[in-house]
Amino acid sequence: MDFDEIIDRRGTHSDKWDMMQAKYGISPQDGIPMWVADMDFRPPACVTGAVEGMARHGIYGYYGDDRGYRAAIRWWMKERHGWQIEPEWIFTTHGLVNGTAMCIDTFTEPGDAVVLFTPVYHAFARVINAAGREVRECPLVNNDGRYEMDFAACDALMTGTERMLILCSPHNPGGRVWTRAELQGVAEFARRHDLILVSDEIHHDLLMPGQRHIPMAHIDGVANRLVMMTATTKTFNIAGAHLGNVIIADDGLRARFARRMAAMGLSPNSFGLFMAEAAYSEEGAEWVDALCAYLDGNRALFDAGVNAIPGLRSMPLEATYLAWVDFSGTGMDTADFTRRVERAARICVNHGPTFGTGGESFLRFNIATPRARVAEAVERLQAAFADLQ
Amino acid sequence: MDFDEIIDRRGTHSDKWDMMQAKYGISPQDGIPMWVADMDFRPPACVTGAVEGMARHGIYGYYGDDRGYRAAIRWWMKERHGWQIEPEWIFTTHGLVNGTAMCIDTFTEPGDAVVLFTPVYHAFARVINAAGREVRECPLVNNDGRYEMDFAACDALMTGTERMLILCSPHNPGGRVWTRAELQGVAEFARRHDLILVSDEIHHDLLMPGQRHIPMAHIDGVANRLVMMTATTKTFNIAGAHLGNVIIADDGLRARFARRMAAMGLSPNSFGLFMAEAAYSEEGAEWVDALCAYLDGNRALFDAGVNAIPGLRSMPLEATYLAWVDFSGTGMDTADFTRRVERAARICVNHGPTFGTGGESFLRFNIATPRARVAEAVERLQAAFADLQ
Ligand SMILES: Cc1ncc(COP(=O)(O)O)c(C=O)c1O
Ligand SMILES: Cc1ncc(COP(=O)(O)O)c(C=O)c1O
Repeated sequence: MDFDEIIDRRGTHSDKWDMMQAKYGISPQDGIPMWVADMDFRPPACVTGAVEGMARHGIYGYYGDDRGYRAAIRWWMKERHGWQIEPEWIFTTHGLVNGTAMCIDTFTEPGDAVVLFTPVYHAFARVINAAGREVRECPLVNNDGRYEMDFAACDALMTGTERMLILCSPHNPGGRVWTRAELQGVAEFARRHDLILVSDEIHHDLLMPGQRHIPMAHIDGVANRLVMMTATTKTFNIAGAHLGNVIIADDGLRARFARRMAAMGLSPNSFGLFMAEAAYSEEGAEWVDALCAYLDGNRALFDAGVNAIPGLRSMPLEATYLAWVDFSGTGMDTADFTRRVERAARICVNHGPTFGTGGESFLRFNIATPRARVAEAVERLQAAFADLQ
Repeated sequence: MDFDEIIDRRGTHSDKWDMMQAKYGISPQDGIPMWVADMDFRPPACVTGAVEGMARHGIYGYYGDDRGYRAAIRWWMKERHGWQIEPEWIFTTHGLVNGTAMCIDTFTEPGDAVVLFTPVYHAFARVINAAGREVRECPLVNNDGRYEMDFAACDALMTGTERMLILCSPHNPGGRVWTRAELQGVAEFARRHDLILVSDEIHHDLLMPGQRHIPMAHIDGVANRLVMMTATTKTFNIAGAHLGNVIIADDGLRARFARRMAAMGLSPNSFGLFMAEAAYSEEGAEWVDALCAYLDGNRALFDAGVNAIPGLRSMPLEATYLAWVDFSGTGMDTADFTRRVERAARICVNHGPTFGTGGESFLRFNIATPRARVAEAVERLQAAFADLQ
């Protein structure tokens, strides 16, 4: 578990590294990619070992017998999240963008609106719009650098066409681990407006020390409208496997989702299945603990360095490796601070506005990379904004 | 390329081997699985090498830069099928069951009918029904052991609700390589009834010596209603990768399909992408040539042995490794001959009726396995039907 090891990802079909030149005009030779949400670390040896084992055997035919796979998911949810699920509640989608899309397709109609607490993970709005549904934004309140929900304000934004709410828990970007009270508020809001509640908990394992994530499934009174989504891909850095867990306890919702899965002819790839089963294990758990400790170190270094720049403010992450930096204190406009980050510091970042209303003055930095690179990024940012010091 | 090598697939999450006990009550210790359509051979070294290379690097993040992947598909279609495509015509679906489902979802509405020439690959009807569409069966004519189409009879079966035709070319089961005249007939039929024509050519590389497959894209007057489907998975025995090519030349159809792909949030897994790019190569081509020669040997052995049993008749395969055996000459009912094959010979086979009308007296045998196993299967069949000799 040497998270400090610098692994060259250039020329490996890495979206993050091999597309930075094309998308940002920043060379992978001396640029720092802090955009795409994957990590520059190897997954635990149990995961890599699963792929090596497949390669050694060498036949990659149709996969059968997923009992061990389902049992591993069940074990992980119980062991790590105190959440008891049944094997037959699990659907395996092609990642959680596809999982989200399947929920929208199954539980809403064209023209319906889907509620998002913005700013939020950009692909939600993308699939909602692509499916001919409408995004209903409920802006989060930035309470002194901490996102909170204002349910009364949200109530006032409802028009009656809303059918679904997609919650990101923990929250990307901004890194909130929602409290029980907040989750109860979300559940009541969903009930009040009769919304299917999709809880995307893909970041649930990536917690900063001392944080405790509460699965939405533990909130009372929401089971009959709840779809839970989790994945190995973010936790173990195997996004290329494109696998996600959509977990539905309610019989009626599950039957509807099953019908759409069958109609779309979706079956998971065997690489993802082998890796997921290997990952959700004691060895995987130890690795995640070490990873979280390392990410916390990166977070501390990054936040200290960035917050030392007058006008910049990094939201304190409770979870995720996605630092969300507010540039509003600089008084610069979006184009200006973005240009400094990308042209002067040569860092690829996600642009705040793509996350929806509330993201205008922000950039998102992925800090899941060896610490030396985080340090280098901080130095470059300090240099790029040196005139503000 | 040692196709004779016996590779133990038991306990490797092989659907074919590890589910035979559960699905057929036949032990993998001494049973012979000839059902699921994958092969008991390793893919070419270039494909296995691609997975090994991924394992060596060890980071499985988001995939980027698919230019080489698209170029490889383009090269293969030109080189092996004389078919010129453009990189942007290609959609990568999660296999061709998903590809078929996406076509149904994009180009038809609930209640519409989809035409199939039956008997045909069972998953077509499964996804059509799961999507709330109707299957319109057009039975193939069994002309002395060779499937043919009777378009006049098909015309009479149309009701006006048909919107799509899914052709299996080459045909599974029955192994026909459709002639140019037949393909022209299909194209005219599609035009006559204004049907979107989905041509599933997943078996196009698996040709018996002397056969020539004609891509439907080479038939005049059909481009504006044509969706082509091909894949590396069947050709190179990498079905676990769950990757398929949906190739659409027509701008209008392509735009509609692209919208549904975006709405479903589908992106391919990197293992499949790496393997496909490696497979569609000179080395892959040489391997396929050797494979086809080997399969032809299996076919000859199987057909000779089976046709020697009075009342049994194996359709002469022009393509595919899926032998389609007619038991009607035995005078036995379906349950009786199936029981002999499964209980006495301990061979797992696909049941004819699952392929639709016309399949009633048939069983499908997958002969893509080392020759010694084909020989053993033949001996067991001869013993199981010895009383007929
Ligand atoms: C909240 C959230 N959901 C889903 C995803 C992506 O899921 P997948 O790669 O499984 O499609 C991400 C990736 O960053 C994410 O942050
Ligand atoms: C005609 C045909 N189409 C599609 C498939 C399966 O495609 P996939 O595994 O890519 O979903 C098969 C498998 O046997 C087939 O015979």
